[in-house]
Amino acid sequence: MTPTVADLIITGCTVLLHDDQERIRFEEDAAIVVREGAVESVTGAAQVVDLPAVERLDAGGQVALPGLINCHTHAPMVALRGVAEDLPTEEWFNDVVWPIESNLTERDVELGARLACAEMIRAGVTCFADHYFSMDAVGAVVEECGMRAHLGEAFFSSQGPQGRERSLEFALRHRSGRITTALAPHAPYTVTDADLTATAELAREHGLPVHLHASENRDQAEASLARHGVTPIGVLKRTGILDTDVLIAHGTGILDTDLPLLAEAGGRVSVATAPRGYLKFAWPTTTPVRALREIGIPVGLATDGAASNNSLDVWESMALTALIQKSTTGDPRWLTSRQALHHATLQSAQAVGLGDRIGSIAPGRRADIILVDLTGPHTQPVHDLAATLVHSAHSCDVRTTIVDGRVLMRDRELLTLDVAAVVGELTERMPGLLDRSHGKRIQEYGT
Amino acid sequence: MTPTVADLIITGCTVLLHDDQERIRFEEDAAIVVREGAVESVTGAAQVVDLPAVERLDAGGQVALPGLINCHTHAPMVALRGVAEDLPTEEWFNDVVWPIESNLTERDVELGARLACAEMIRAGVTCFADHYFSMDAVGAVVEECGMRAHLGEAFFSSQGPQGRERSLEFALRHRSGRITTALAPHAPYTVTDADLTATAELAREHGLPVHLHASENRDQAEASLARHGVTPIGVLKRTGILDTDVLIAHGTGILDTDLPLLAEAGGRVSVATAPRGYLKFAWPTTTPVRALREIGIPVGLATDGAASNNSLDVWESMALTALIQKSTTGDPRWLTSRQALHHATLQSAQAVGLGDRIGSIAPGRRADIILVDLTGPHTQPVHDLAATLVHSAHSCDVRTTIVDGRVLMRDRELLTLDVAAVVGELTERMPGLLDRSHGKRIQEYGT
Repeated sequence: MTPTVADLIITGCTVLLHDDQERIRFEEDAAIVVREGAVESVTGAAQVVDLPAVERLDAGGQVALPGLINCHTHAPMVALRGVAEDLPTEEWFNDVVWPIESNLTERDVELGARLACAEMIRAGVTCFADHYFSMDAVGAVVEECGMRAHLGEAFFSSQGPQGRERSLEFALRHRSGRITTALAPHAPYTVTDADLTATAELAREHGLPVHLHASENRDQAEASLARHGVTPIGVLKRTGILDTDVLIAHGTGILDTDLPLLAEAGGRVSVATAPRGYLKFAWPTTTPVRALREIGIPVGLATDGAASNNSLDVWESMALTALIQKSTTGDPRWLTSRQALHHATLQSAQAVGLGDRIGSIAPGRRADIILVDLTGPHTQPVHDLAATLVHSAHSCDVRTTIVDGRVLMRDRELLTLDVAAVVGELTERMPGLLDRSHGKRIQEYGT
Repeated sequence: MTPTVADLIITGCTVLLHDDQERIRFEEDAAIVVREGAVESVTGAAQVVDLPAVERLDAGGQVALPGLINCHTHAPMVALRGVAEDLPTEEWFNDVVWPIESNLTERDVELGARLACAEMIRAGVTCFADHYFSMDAVGAVVEECGMRAHLGEAFFSSQGPQGRERSLEFALRHRSGRITTALAPHAPYTVTDADLTATAELAREHGLPVHLHASENRDQAEASLARHGVTPIGVLKRTGILDTDVLIAHGTGILDTDLPLLAEAGGRVSVATAPRGYLKFAWPTTTPVRALREIGIPVGLATDGAASNNSLDVWESMALTALIQKSTTGDPRWLTSRQALHHATLQSAQAVGLGDRIGSIAPGRRADIILVDLTGPHTQPVHDLAATLVHSAHSCDVRTTIVDGRVLMRDRELLTLDVAAVVGELTERMPGLLDRSHGKRIQEYGT
């Protein structure tokens, strides 16, 4: 019997694998067989020598990881990278970002998404959860460039009922293939309780998850308590949002009193942490990852938008999460490199609702795989591979990025996007995009 | 009259320049003319079209910065990268690092230094201040690979007078050309007051600076107060070390009461900050950069050794310094990207005693220059070049590294070091180096 031809075989690498106890391990000198966009098997290099394949990738000296997942971003905001620096949160929103965003066109969003996808593919990110405007344009870029994405059309209550309706219409129309969708209210401080309640009902009715900002920082938690008598998490509880599958961005203002609400939520709750921006805005706290883990909530890694984070580098989020968790808990033993890799892989997949499809390299999972080169002087010698990956390697050590079995970057060359063309057109459009002389803004920040 | 031939002309780049008010600025479409290892002029691209040169580097789309300076490291410890993870400081020293270091041979140090120099050149580091053992081996590697270094043979009082004598002998013998030297007592908690006093006298007698650890963390400061009635900075004061030109590593335990002692020091005092390790060890504070700047003390950037920091990536230290200073002062406006670049350039040069030779690209300065490529998707568009450099670019965006006018890395290819050969031999030697069955350690950590 002739064996059937595999689509792709990756040979000679060390593979990061998961067990069912939330642990990771590394299998050396392994091979990964990919067929029809999925992992068919992870086996020994010797087992695939005679197996025919359309394409073979020799990954000797490299480590195969599940593709990284950016669990909360606003991809098109790469266009505004560096435009609002060294500012407190309120000035960042009200004086720069929200005035500029009132100029946004669908073409700006498309170009921004294209540049963002290029950056993410080069950084080993294979999937991102995006929360922005003109999301049809983002969806089209995702379709074209080959990434996976979890998309939501953001809305404020100030947009009237049309905002929520547009978010629903987008979510229903776009869920297929590599794209999953969510309802995307902006946050409890910009969306009314009535609109959040209606969102929760729509989520249940249509089987959709919700992705929103909540308790982003301590100020928001305190303002909510003062104004409504409950924290933002309390608002999510009383509006029924916690009974949906909800992805909460940031949550650095989550208080101890919020934990029982999250633990007892009727839906699957997860949190995305993007620690770089919290440092940059000088917020007093970071996401309480340890407390969230103790009640079983997955914490995915994220970058937020590049206008605050300055990059979409999830690898950096992984390292910073390990470092900042040690620092803020005062415990050098907490959030080990292996735990950081678990956050970056399975927990991030769970956070974007894809815990059974991606996030690990195992038979039946989609073949979202990155190959990382550890032969550089900064990653040698290797005494502890997890530590080398988290604390010594960088995103630029990713040589190859694969989504659904398709190679999107080979030897650091992007195969589906043209960066120079995108940057050229974006630069031409910049004067119109940056103009703030109109005095408008899309929304007011006041927690 | 025929113009004389320049050694190297770099054309088409944007150049970071300094004024005399501690500010930086960027000059676009510039050219740098290098002769006899020094910068002869920074001029317009048009001015050098007809100027003959032995070598021309077209740096269009790139930014020329002064080479980064690693103001405090233990370069050969790259051999121990990842060997002691997720441990508190005391266990890290007593259970792993100091036992292993009792096995160190001169060959291990040489190989480690070679790997470290490879890592640093690839990260755009042109000069490092090293504080370690068997420093003859490090000096030989520096001579050979073309970097600049500020070297000190470390000693503990437990070694007897020979330790201090060896440190002096090394410092006197090696100061020439690209190598400057310092006396290198380990720290006030491992070197007696008598030895520190003798060190200060030797420094004055021989015109040598001192490089040591002091008040590394809050525990050390408190233990010193309890035991000696003064802080570690107080010990430096009473032993005369503050009357020498002294480079203090870390200083995260520097208290407000130490500031007048530092401000009134008779010598030139500077501090090196290596923020990554402080997070990783979960130390409660970081270097008080703002307070030090307010009393005029230069704060240079550093990585410490790779056994704690996991890399020698000064670029990351630059970004982390900006982020962690914002976070710990609670002020998003403090430590802007421009300030971070000033720390990374002129202040770092001052910290290693080379403030008049390196740290800026200006006529008469040594030609220690790096060229950084900002055409990648993660560094586009550029709205604020300083922010792009500090918060979006990585060390791997450095394409070219030049020291004393000599190209040590071209298009990311190392020209003076063979990484594979070094890693091969280091790996073979690892079982002997890592053996802890002897139960020895070079020193006891107990603050």
